[in-house]
Amino acid sequence: MNASEIVRLVDFVKMGGLVPVIVQDAKNCAILMLAYMNAEALEETLRTRQLCYYSRSRKKLWRKGEESGHTQELVELRLDCDGDALLALVRQKGAACHEGYRTCFFRTFTEDGIRVIGERLFDPNKIYKKQPKQ
Amino acid sequence: MNASEIVRLVDFVKMGGLVPVIVQDAKNCAILMLAYMNAEALEETLRTRQLCYYSRSRKKLWRKGEESGHTQELVELRLDCDGDALLALVRQKGAACHEGYRTCFFRTFTEDGIRVIGERLFDPNKIYKKQPKQ
Repeated sequence: MNASEIVRLVDFVKMGGLVPVIVQDAKNCAILMLAYMNAEALEETLRTRQLCYYSRSRKKLWRKGEESGHTQELVELRLDCDGDALLALVRQKGAACHEGYRTCFFRTFTEDGIRVIGERLFDPNKIYKKQPKQ
Repeated sequence: MNASEIVRLVDFVKMGGLVPVIVQDAKNCAILMLAYMNAEALEETLRTRQLCYYSRSRKKLWRKGEESGHTQELVELRLDCDGDALLALVRQKGAACHEGYRTCFFRTFTEDGIRVIGERLFDPNKIYKKQPKQ
């Protein structure tokens, strides 16, 4: 099916033009991040097979990895029962997180406090020209 | 750390009092669903160790499995880099999806159309007294 047929099946209304996208590593099933797409970002993702989101803070399309080189290649796209959430299985190059971790979910709550469990793959100060902002 | 310390670390502002929660099967890493919590739902989840959400359609707390018996026991809770998304690792009893599938993401986009890939574990008409609504 083509991109416009897919876009029509996604409910963008509930979140004012956006849909949340769970991004999962196709190789090891790790959850890499949660981001948002508008219809245009979804169309571009399907056309290029490279993940493209809508940045809520910058209010524009955000081609993942355009600055860092840490791109995500789309392997498979799934839709949930209500049509208001997507699951993208991807091939992640480098780190998904702008803080240099493989996954954005690198902190876990424990009885003693919040603990970093992810491995830092790069120093963000060396990758981004300006202060990273997602 | 206690529930109120955890709640203070979560950014509920970006989504008007809610935070999205990715729910992952702690046993096999499958993504089960995406749901939302307000601060009260997060506190209750941490207190009872059973997943409790905020239903956007019913506009009230939604204790997962209260009608179906398909509860989710909290194993671990992770926070993302921006503090505006949670990842809950759970022990799922039965099916996560109100349509009877183990996971809500039981449909995948293929070249030929949308295809059901999940196994249906129960018939929702036999479980829910009224039309299921999440």
